[in-house]
Amino acid sequence: MKARIHITLKNGVLDPQGKAIQSALGAIGFDGVDDVRQGKFMEIELAETDETKARSTLEAMCEKLLANTVIENYAIDLGD
Amino acid sequence: MKARIHITLKNGVLDPQGKAIQSALGAIGFDGVDDVRQGKFMEIELAETDETKARSTLEAMCEKLLANTVIENYAIDLGD
Repeated sequence: MKARIHITLKNGVLDPQGKAIQSALGAIGFDGVDDVRQGKFMEIELAETDETKARSTLEAMCEKLLANTVIENYAIDLGD
Repeated sequence: MKARIHITLKNGVLDPQGKAIQSALGAIGFDGVDDVRQGKFMEIELAETDETKARSTLEAMCEKLLANTVIENYAIDLGD
């Protein structure tokens, strides 16, 4: 089973990487960029085939390793 | 207009960061992880309201700055 995980900074948390991208875009002539937020994206291939078990495993992975839940949110999309 | 951009490594390109995550997950007891691929994810807020123009601007941004198109693919999702 394939899962797609998005890890994004919580609202209100400063995102210097996003700001750097925004200013770099401005510097090469892209105007009208109001905001950029940078996050992480992972594709995980699991041996588990049961969707409920896979989701609970993925949540545990995010809580323990993949996301820093003090400042980051995570979202799990399960595919096939 | 809000856009979500996914930047992922092309198939066949080695992903040492993904492999590191996979082995770290194994080390803390998560078995059955067959593969991990790490990518980037960006949320960009554009002043542009026309969808066609926004998409072409975003494609140019990806080609020029955001993605390394030799080894990376990008995907653009436009929201409102």
